[in-house]
Formats: sequence, structure tokens, C-alpha cells
Amino acid sequence: MEKSKNRLEVCLSPAIYDKHADDHNLVVIVDILRATSSICAAMHNGVKSIFPVATVEEARAMKQQGYMVASERDGFVLDFADFGNSPFNFTPEIVKGKEIAYSTTNGTRCIHMASHSKSVLIGSFLNISALASWLIQQNAPVLIFCASWKDRFSLEDTVFAGALAERLLDSGKYESNCDAVTASLDLWSIAKNDLLGYIQKAAQKGRLASKGLDDCIEYCLTADQTTVVPLFREDKLIDISGIEKIN
Amino acid sequence: MEKSKNRLEVCLSPAIYDKHADDHNLVVIVDILRATSSICAAMHNGVKSIFPVATVEEARAMKQQGYMVASERDGFVLDFADFGNSPFNFTPEIVKGKEIAYSTTNGTRCIHMASHSKSVLIGSFLNISALASWLIQQNAPVLIFCASWKDRFSLEDTVFAGALAERLLDSGKYESNCDAVTASLDLWSIAKNDLLGYIQKAAQKGRLASKGLDDCIEYCLTADQTTVVPLFREDKLIDISGIEKIN
Repeated sequence: MEKSKNRLEVCLSPAIYDKHADDHNLVVIVDILRATSSICAAMHNGVKSIFPVATVEEARAMKQQGYMVASERDGFVLDFADFGNSPFNFTPEIVKGKEIAYSTTNGTRCIHMASHSKSVLIGSFLNISALASWLIQQNAPVLIFCASWKDRFSLEDTVFAGALAERLLDSGKYESNCDAVTASLDLWSIAKNDLLGYIQKAAQKGRLASKGLDDCIEYCLTADQTTVVPLFREDKLIDISGIEKIN
Repeated sequence: MEKSKNRLEVCLSPAIYDKHADDHNLVVIVDILRATSSICAAMHNGVKSIFPVATVEEARAMKQQGYMVASERDGFVLDFADFGNSPFNFTPEIVKGKEIAYSTTNGTRCIHMASHSKSVLIGSFLNISALASWLIQQNAPVLIFCASWKDRFSLEDTVFAGALAERLLDSGKYESNCDAVTASLDLWSIAKNDLLGYIQKAAQKGRLASKGLDDCIEYCLTADQTTVVPLFREDKLIDISGIEKIN
């Protein structure tokens, strides 16, 4: 008997998350500019674990407990923080073997919203192939969850959702009846041949550029810079790329 | 001095509406399959006014007051109703000069959510040119509000948003910094050459087909079947296509 395929969905905004929530889901959090790209870069550079925290107060408390802290609000590094949210901050010299508290409003909120699920993972172009391979091995439904910006639709997160959805559907192990998957795939098909050029249209590109924070955009759109697969477990993100299957 | 352009945004789900809400907006409600298409068809066929109601109880109460009632839940016409939600129901013989109560969960909810705005209008492919022309005359920001299906993203509503956005932007009187506008335009660019073929991919197409209710899809995707411009005012929808400018 042919094995039935697993469900694939895309959630385009945290405001819609409860319509997609399912305890059996593997949920991939996506915040391409810049949180999930930065988390992948930090893991690639040897960080031991990352504690996502939502508020400035939590970040400050973690700092007082001795953690290194990445924290930024509206493009400005907070005074007590060790660095901001650019993936270029998390160099091996600084983060290797360390535990870091990472304050990101949207990303942390999405991770905690999805924490009832089977697993919560971190996705970006930087780890797309490793993540896709890992997901395909798991034999479980996948929800790609766009963190977006203040609950609005985000172009760069949706284009990434399309790129990841394409790989999962091409494996033959998933099926979809979700319009957001269809739209993501179609936007990715338009964007893929000139991704950097396409993302010039994104509102977040303009927000970052206005603060001089857009130097990392090309890097954040570059596939397969790392093989890490960050997973959220017991309040922190760890790399589980060496572990074939989780329960 | 050059006059500044008006803001154009697209809201992809009622769950995100509060991020786009602005008292100055002209809000275009979009529920292509089938509520806003049916409203345009009914107005074209001479209905005097349409009272959108959210609940079955309200629809029943309107029936007892002597109104004709269009009401359907999950594809089944309710026993006390005169007809369901297909645009083919609202023929001139039946609706001309009448006042109708129209029960549609998503559409009514969106109309009432947006009722704080400058104006609330009804959009569909059936009246797209008349609506675009009317909007362009008004000199006010426009929000295209996709009613979607149970708060999820809807392909057919988004493709219509792109079609209308294209006309407004081509007028030179609007500008956008909204990623949902960009995505809608790009999806419309893919869909426009074979709209019926493209909408075969939409989840709502499958939902209607499974109940034999998909006979109206081609009609609902056909541009410019009418010049009506339905506007919501004082609890009811009326055609204001003869009125050049409202205050």
C-alpha cells in the first residue's frame, strides 16, 4: 500500500498562526531579514546555544546572569548588549562555545507560539539544503511559519517559504492544499533567477537601508552557507544537524 | 507643486486588518468566490439594496420582517432562505427593486470591521473597471481587503487585489510600500493570461467543486460584466456608480 504524503502548509503572518497550528507539525520559523539568518550564522560559527527572548527586560536579565546578549530595537543596539542583530556580528572569535541570549521580538514570539508543536526549527537561505534534507527524513507534516514584520505580510519570508516548499514537494513526500503554498511557490518562481534584485522591492529592505543596516542582505539571500539545523528545545536553540531523527 | 500620491495597501486576511486600518481609507472588500461577485451581480440585476448580515439568526429575523434572504452555510441553502450564495441566483425577475438580506460570514465581518473607514466598497472582477475609475476620482488612500476563507490566505482574492492594484498604480495617482501589493501584482502577472486555469489551483475552487457549486467560477473571473459600484452606508449596500464623488 502506498504511504500517504505529509501535509505542507505556509503561514504568512503570526496573526494567522492559529489557523495552521497542529501539535504534529514540524514548524520552520522564517525571519530572513535578519533573525533566522543570524541564528544560522551564529550556529555555524560555533555558538553552543541561543536563548531567544522576547523583551528587552529579559535580555537585560540574561546579561546580568553572565550571558552574551544580542539585542536591537528598531535598528539600534541596546546599550547593555554585546551586539545587534546582524549575522556579521556572530563571528567565531566571539561566539564559539558560548551561550547567547538573542532578543528578537517577532522571531521569539513565533518560536513560543509554535512551541506546542512536535518540533520548532529555524530556517533561512543559509541552511536551506541541510534543513530540507533533515525535514524530509522526519515523516511528519511541515508548517513554514513566516515571522513577517509586525504581523504584516513579508515578501522575503514568503519567497523563502516558496524555495523551501519547492524542495519538499520535489521530494514526493509532501502534498498541499494550502493557497499560501501555491502563492509562495509562484513568488519564488519569479524571484529565483535574480533574488537580490527581487528583494529590492521588499519593504524591509527599505527599512534596513534607511538605517544603514542593509549590508547583510546579499549574504542573507545566499543559499547553503552552513549545514546547521537549529532546533528549539527546553528554552534554547541547539544545532541538531548531526542527529538523524528526533522523537 | 506636485500633488503627493495616495497610499495603496493590500490586506491579505481579516486577521491582519488592524495593521492596515485607517479612518481615511477607501476599503474595497474582496470575496471573489462568491460573496462580492454575487453582490455585484445582484446590483447589476436591479436589487434596490442589500443588507449584509453575519449570522443565521439575523438572516432569519430579516426573513420574518419580510425581506428576501440569501443565506448559505458550507454550501447548503438554509431552509428559510430564498436562495444561496451563487451569483446566478440573483436574476432580474427575482431581485429587481427588492431589498435583500445577504448572510455571508466572511464578507459581512469584513464590511463591519472596515466600517470606521471613509468608505467601504465591494469589489469583484465583474465590476473592476467601474470600481477602479470611481476610486481614482476620489483622491484618498485605498486598502484592498481580501476577505479570505476563515482568516487564511486566499489565492483568488489576492489575484484580484493584484488586478485592481495594477489599474490604480497605472493611473499614476497611487504609491505603495506594502509587500502585499508587490506580491499581489506578481501573482496577477502570472495568473492574468489564463485566469481560469490559474484559479484551478485555489483551495476554494476545490471546496466549491466538492459540493457542485463551482459552476459560477468562470463567471466570477470575467471582467466588466457590470458598472455598479456597491457602497456600504447605514447598514446596507447601495449602488453609487451614478455619484461621482462622495464625502
